[in-house]
Amino acid sequence: MIQMERTKIVDILIAPEVGSDVNIKGWVRTKRGSKGISFVAVNDGSCIHNLQVVVDHQSFDEELLKKITTGASVSITGLLTESQGKGQSVEIQAKEILLYGEADPMTYPLQKKGHGMEFLREIAHLRPRTNTFGAVFRIRHHMAIAIHKFFHERGFFYFHTPLITASDAEGAGAMFEVTTLNIDNPPRHEDGTVDYSEDFFGRRTNLTVSGQLEGELAATALGAIYTFGPTFRAENSNTPRHLAEFWMIEPEIAFYDIVDNMNLAEEFIKYLVQWALDNCRDDLEFLNNMIDKELIARLESVVSKEFKRLTYTEGVKILEDAVAKGHKFEYPVFWGADLASEHERYLVENHFKTPVILTDYPAEIKAFYMKQNEDGKTVRAMDVLFPKIGEIIGGSQREESYEKLVRRCDETGVPTKEMSWYLDTRRFGTVPHSGFGLGFERLLLFVTGMGNIRDVIPFPRTPNNADF
Amino acid sequence: MIQMERTKIVDILIAPEVGSDVNIKGWVRTKRGSKGISFVAVNDGSCIHNLQVVVDHQSFDEELLKKITTGASVSITGLLTESQGKGQSVEIQAKEILLYGEADPMTYPLQKKGHGMEFLREIAHLRPRTNTFGAVFRIRHHMAIAIHKFFHERGFFYFHTPLITASDAEGAGAMFEVTTLNIDNPPRHEDGTVDYSEDFFGRRTNLTVSGQLEGELAATALGAIYTFGPTFRAENSNTPRHLAEFWMIEPEIAFYDIVDNMNLAEEFIKYLVQWALDNCRDDLEFLNNMIDKELIARLESVVSKEFKRLTYTEGVKILEDAVAKGHKFEYPVFWGADLASEHERYLVENHFKTPVILTDYPAEIKAFYMKQNEDGKTVRAMDVLFPKIGEIIGGSQREESYEKLVRRCDETGVPTKEMSWYLDTRRFGTVPHSGFGLGFERLLLFVTGMGNIRDVIPFPRTPNNADF
Repeated sequence: MIQMERTKIVDILIAPEVGSDVNIKGWVRTKRGSKGISFVAVNDGSCIHNLQVVVDHQSFDEELLKKITTGASVSITGLLTESQGKGQSVEIQAKEILLYGEADPMTYPLQKKGHGMEFLREIAHLRPRTNTFGAVFRIRHHMAIAIHKFFHERGFFYFHTPLITASDAEGAGAMFEVTTLNIDNPPRHEDGTVDYSEDFFGRRTNLTVSGQLEGELAATALGAIYTFGPTFRAENSNTPRHLAEFWMIEPEIAFYDIVDNMNLAEEFIKYLVQWALDNCRDDLEFLNNMIDKELIARLESVVSKEFKRLTYTEGVKILEDAVAKGHKFEYPVFWGADLASEHERYLVENHFKTPVILTDYPAEIKAFYMKQNEDGKTVRAMDVLFPKIGEIIGGSQREESYEKLVRRCDETGVPTKEMSWYLDTRRFGTVPHSGFGLGFERLLLFVTGMGNIRDVIPFPRTPNNADF
Repeated sequence: MIQMERTKIVDILIAPEVGSDVNIKGWVRTKRGSKGISFVAVNDGSCIHNLQVVVDHQSFDEELLKKITTGASVSITGLLTESQGKGQSVEIQAKEILLYGEADPMTYPLQKKGHGMEFLREIAHLRPRTNTFGAVFRIRHHMAIAIHKFFHERGFFYFHTPLITASDAEGAGAMFEVTTLNIDNPPRHEDGTVDYSEDFFGRRTNLTVSGQLEGELAATALGAIYTFGPTFRAENSNTPRHLAEFWMIEPEIAFYDIVDNMNLAEEFIKYLVQWALDNCRDDLEFLNNMIDKELIARLESVVSKEFKRLTYTEGVKILEDAVAKGHKFEYPVFWGADLASEHERYLVENHFKTPVILTDYPAEIKAFYMKQNEDGKTVRAMDVLFPKIGEIIGGSQREESYEKLVRRCDETGVPTKEMSWYLDTRRFGTVPHSGFGLGFERLLLFVTGMGNIRDVIPFPRTPNNADF
């Protein structure tokens, strides 16, 4: 057996040493034959491209060659040569083939033919072996790396907020309960109610819907932080845009006002999209060809344009004008309404033809912690609206006045006693501060062009689905 | 009001422009006075160091100066000058002081005097404002960045495995249940048992204890991946080494054998420790002075030494010899025993005086998925043992033979039907592969010198504690 160190296919293709022996290890994607010769396409997951292996039947055992089928795993050593065929620049003339594992063509689900997304979701444990999901998950990796790099370079600290929390005050959405009680027969008080003091944490707990409040604790100590972790919503939403478990990025920055916050958000998302264009070109080109023909053009457009900034009130006026001119929306438009995705996309795609940042939303449709404007009606919220996606980032300057915040808690039913740890940030050395949240999978929908959020996370959790 | 862009204190100290005006924003750590002049130490979280502000009482309103107390938040503009006093090289001669928020000395819990760790845990929402926790959380950030950088540079893909899972087969520990059922009155089948088909996911689900199995799915498609996410154990362990919610890093690599795996683990952890020494020097020096006088020496020792590699069997022999020579252990030593921390630390600290990698553990004390050795008794496991910590990394080569793995499932009671998605990695194109897990907080205990794991995570979750 020839002993050679394995080279990843991505590295061979970046700097091919034609005329040298190489060893690759990976999985067979296809095999086609032609009088005494087989062409075996091997992929090792390191990039979208396969490396073609030319196998002279005379040099190998017939039984071995039979087992080289789609999905089989192999180690191949041979001479790297310039390719005679189309579609690849280099190929390997096989000298040695080691078969690690077969993939029975009768049962292996990923045969050559294309598969529907729905079918691939059912075999989510195998779909990373396809071109599309290989590309999506490599881009997912790159976006995560770019997020850390962006914040690290700017002196933000990555901060881990808790997943299990007893705080249920934010009201951001329905929650999952976390328990070690025996649900069939929980301990009970004398009056018959469940005795949560026997639960693991001695109280009711649930999975977090946002790390923001804890993020504010950190920002008012370390100055600038960001979270990047899983977040949960127990909403029974069976849509292509909702997951029960998803990842969120939430920067929070002391001494930032709403303008600083908008500047950061715009710089951030342009940085991420530019990173994808610079570092994921092959995968993006594949997705551009196979999934969304306008993908790369849309990404390039976003990084080149200045985002349009206007108030919610101005935005509603534009939408009302559109309605007056005959544009039909499914949902009504009026000052005070929560904008629907169709409204957001109208502003972005039809009216301004550039991403939009809307600010100064009505207080009634926004969270209690947002900074109140002088007008007594609006808050210093900001939503970044994107083509195809609608809202991709939501954020605000936070209310730093203890008195105003407590009043707003009272008005909206937030229990100030349970939230005293949060209010302490305003009691002790309060500062102006701001932050926002980016749904990681929303970003990935935009960057990959995929149409369903279940296809940009490895193992989607949705109503009635927690497989794998 | 002077309009100046704020500079972070860390940036001022790296390249002080003496003679220029600067603006800083942060929180007052201390104020001391001396005939008509106050010295105010301001910290902004960007680094361990305060910047001293010299305040001439004649230039400022007395009422304002009274409010400049520990914990108050301020914006200070003034001339950066070389410091006349001890303990700092530069200071600011204040020209303008803006008070954002007071911190009432009667109620603000973080006064100048030192606080016990137990007290600080009770005010975990404020403890990032202390020197110690500022240092710990900045180092935590740096270790996370170094982890991503290490893997990214080596072509590993960051892969998000699910938090909520229906898989309860690994047996790595007690689990938290996740539910939307009404625990007080859950829906029931006719026979009275709880009807989990009504639960959010249509079945019983819990919080993951490890992402490894899903990580293997990814590694056998993308080649080399790592996870870095929260993990949960519902164990009622009230010790300085256990958390109910903690973060884990789990690389998984196709075509890696146990030796590749050991090489990766040793390179990885040395990289992280070296990163801390190179990038967190000021914070480490603070912790070295205040928490653990041997910290930096211990970190430097680990990166400079080759880890000693030996089998479990050889390790047990050394421990048995030590017992024979009179060394007392609390727990018994014999072949087949799960080693206790005292045994691991004996090998590391007393015998070899260097980190140790033990391999080839008895199958009976290791998980079902580890590759079986020819001897029929041991598996290709590896544990990396560290001074002060004991086991810091645990991993193995994985069993790639479908038949052997199924046999082992049957022997250990792992339900092969429910695990068919996992077994598919061995049915279709199976490959040799390996991986390991590093507990992020165990790493941080080592790198920071802190004694209790609750003090290296922002908001620790432990039995009867889910505050904040």
